[in-house]
Amino acid sequence: MVVRLEGGVCAPQGFKVAVGSCGYKRSGEPDLCLLAAEERCAAAGTFTGNAFKAAPVLVTMRNIADGYLEAVVVNAGNANAWTGERGMRDAEAMAAVAARELGIRPEDVAVASTGVIGRYLEMERIERGIVEAAGKLDAGRSAEAARAIMTTDTRPKEVALDCGGFRVGGMAKGAGMIKPDMATMLAFLTTDARVEPDVLARALRGAVEESFNRITIDGCTSTNDMVLCMAGGASGHRPSEDELRACLLEVCSELARAIVLDGEGATRFVTVKVSGAADAHEAKLAAMAVAESPLVKAAVFGGDPNWGRVVQAVGAAVRDVDPRGVSVDICGIRVAEKGAPVEVVEDLAAAVSGKDVALEVSLGRGEAEVEVWTCDLSYDYVRINAEYHT
Amino acid sequence: MVVRLEGGVCAPQGFKVAVGSCGYKRSGEPDLCLLAAEERCAAAGTFTGNAFKAAPVLVTMRNIADGYLEAVVVNAGNANAWTGERGMRDAEAMAAVAARELGIRPEDVAVASTGVIGRYLEMERIERGIVEAAGKLDAGRSAEAARAIMTTDTRPKEVALDCGGFRVGGMAKGAGMIKPDMATMLAFLTTDARVEPDVLARALRGAVEESFNRITIDGCTSTNDMVLCMAGGASGHRPSEDELRACLLEVCSELARAIVLDGEGATRFVTVKVSGAADAHEAKLAAMAVAESPLVKAAVFGGDPNWGRVVQAVGAAVRDVDPRGVSVDICGIRVAEKGAPVEVVEDLAAAVSGKDVALEVSLGRGEAEVEVWTCDLSYDYVRINAEYHT
Repeated sequence: MVVRLEGGVCAPQGFKVAVGSCGYKRSGEPDLCLLAAEERCAAAGTFTGNAFKAAPVLVTMRNIADGYLEAVVVNAGNANAWTGERGMRDAEAMAAVAARELGIRPEDVAVASTGVIGRYLEMERIERGIVEAAGKLDAGRSAEAARAIMTTDTRPKEVALDCGGFRVGGMAKGAGMIKPDMATMLAFLTTDARVEPDVLARALRGAVEESFNRITIDGCTSTNDMVLCMAGGASGHRPSEDELRACLLEVCSELARAIVLDGEGATRFVTVKVSGAADAHEAKLAAMAVAESPLVKAAVFGGDPNWGRVVQAVGAAVRDVDPRGVSVDICGIRVAEKGAPVEVVEDLAAAVSGKDVALEVSLGRGEAEVEVWTCDLSYDYVRINAEYHT
Repeated sequence: MVVRLEGGVCAPQGFKVAVGSCGYKRSGEPDLCLLAAEERCAAAGTFTGNAFKAAPVLVTMRNIADGYLEAVVVNAGNANAWTGERGMRDAEAMAAVAARELGIRPEDVAVASTGVIGRYLEMERIERGIVEAAGKLDAGRSAEAARAIMTTDTRPKEVALDCGGFRVGGMAKGAGMIKPDMATMLAFLTTDARVEPDVLARALRGAVEESFNRITIDGCTSTNDMVLCMAGGASGHRPSEDELRACLLEVCSELARAIVLDGEGATRFVTVKVSGAADAHEAKLAAMAVAESPLVKAAVFGGDPNWGRVVQAVGAAVRDVDPRGVSVDICGIRVAEKGAPVEVVEDLAAAVSGKDVALEVSLGRGEAEVEVWTCDLSYDYVRINAEYHT
């Protein structure tokens, strides 16, 4: 039985967290977070598929390659992306400063950054933030940490579950440049399960594929996406890989939904389900095409059940699908099938006026299906991204 | 020498046009256009790649298959798309009514529709519009025709050129659901060049590839896209294929630019140039990724030279490109190269404050290059597409 807990990444035994201020947030609020395990522990990560991986992504990929980590340091406000050799040195310095303060090896520290691309970090400010955080590590500060890693997010995202014998906690940030691919924006998970690195890596990959890799806010895959999970083993419980993956998936799904719900300017949560596809790739291609269509998203914002835009997106993505096999349901109401409209007797406009909108398409030519999550496209998305100046 | 002319599609000798009202536009303005050649003439077309081709697209593809047309009938306000067998019968009836009124064969009439997807046409209204238009065909009404085919366009788009011995005229409509692929929204060209159908088809395909197929407003490939060209031969001049393609390209380019300038909510014209790509496919993939990124487009709307979003889009599209070979220029100012930022001494913010914004990326690994055109993402795009109710 899964039981919901307070405490986010500190709900599992053996993890402490604290925040510091580097001065990147105009509000002066903390913008750096340090997450430390009681001892070196099994760790796994998934990372952005973007060709221009940010320096912290490259450093973390290297440091996690042996399957172990002891701490994670995260800053918000500057992505340290597209910063060349100097960016690599800065990311390594972040790990080194955190390691010095914690008395551990730099190779056991993961580094993550989020914010503006193409700016060098000011290392004296980063170091100040790390030193501040290291001085107040505590198992009761997860909510502060989830807030410190935010950029345009409007609320912190954390969750923790007791999965029976072991616990999993997590926090994430999202809001914009969100179309995770092999990873997401930033998410950090902890568990006190006792698990080998390779089992953890497989379980995490599976959980990420069915959660973070199924959301999109604006179709933009970031340079800095990263999901990390550290498994300390303090519970003494050794779950099966399936047990572990199921619990990680539940935490990842909740964080992924929270990212969509807090998407830049989002007013509605949209579930796009595509079934009857020839294979999983086709199902996801079609679902993402609907979820990323600015026409569909603007219609949802306007409360308009404009299913013509849904079929347009599907037909543009899957060029050889026969319309005679396709059907479309909006919030459970059949609106189109066999290449023609269906006369709708229900109040379709009322059905799409709520906070949750479901768009379902069956391609009628196979067994594969997928569900992806997105949000609508509102004035506030434009405002946030037109005003968020570099 | 190319000379600009008045008269749009009627500038070439041998073509007449008129408009009618079917009552689909709330304003009561004409929403149907009939374009008639003096005699059956060589014709070519390019059509949407969307799997769910609208009925008028399917009927026109069939009627143009022999390389000849004598008239085109177009209605705005209802796309006759995703309307199944009944939609096919309606599109055929549009051709039949126009043929009857003009005293020609239905198989020589092309049909085009634009507007809401998933609604059946009301054929008595369409017939009324066709009869009205047929009664007032004239060589001086091209501006009315260019206005009648508009949907969310704010201004008509027409152009005519004297290319030395022969003339080419054209009109187009655009505004939303614009990412032409093998075609565009609707564009109709005429010429009085004397040309065989196969030469016309090759010249048109070449011109479309370098004009309409290089624009995007919202990344959405419509179900109804169509570019048609009729060549009547009244000039008696027989241009070479290259001559013809060059002139068609000039007309298509001007219409394509006009579509982007009048994109839904557009406030700036954005030229995205990608060079140094491994091949033409890669160049266009990268350029379209930049041109379709809502983050890039919102930044341009906000007058923000946010080149980090440009590199993000390129890196997400071309997953194996080495950042050390890549450079980025914004409005001619080098902002990034070799995977790192460049110190900018010019006033970059001032450079992007104009109506025209140029984004240039060199991938540094080949000789292929492409230029695509798009517009920014503004509040008005969201307003138009949230309020344009079905």
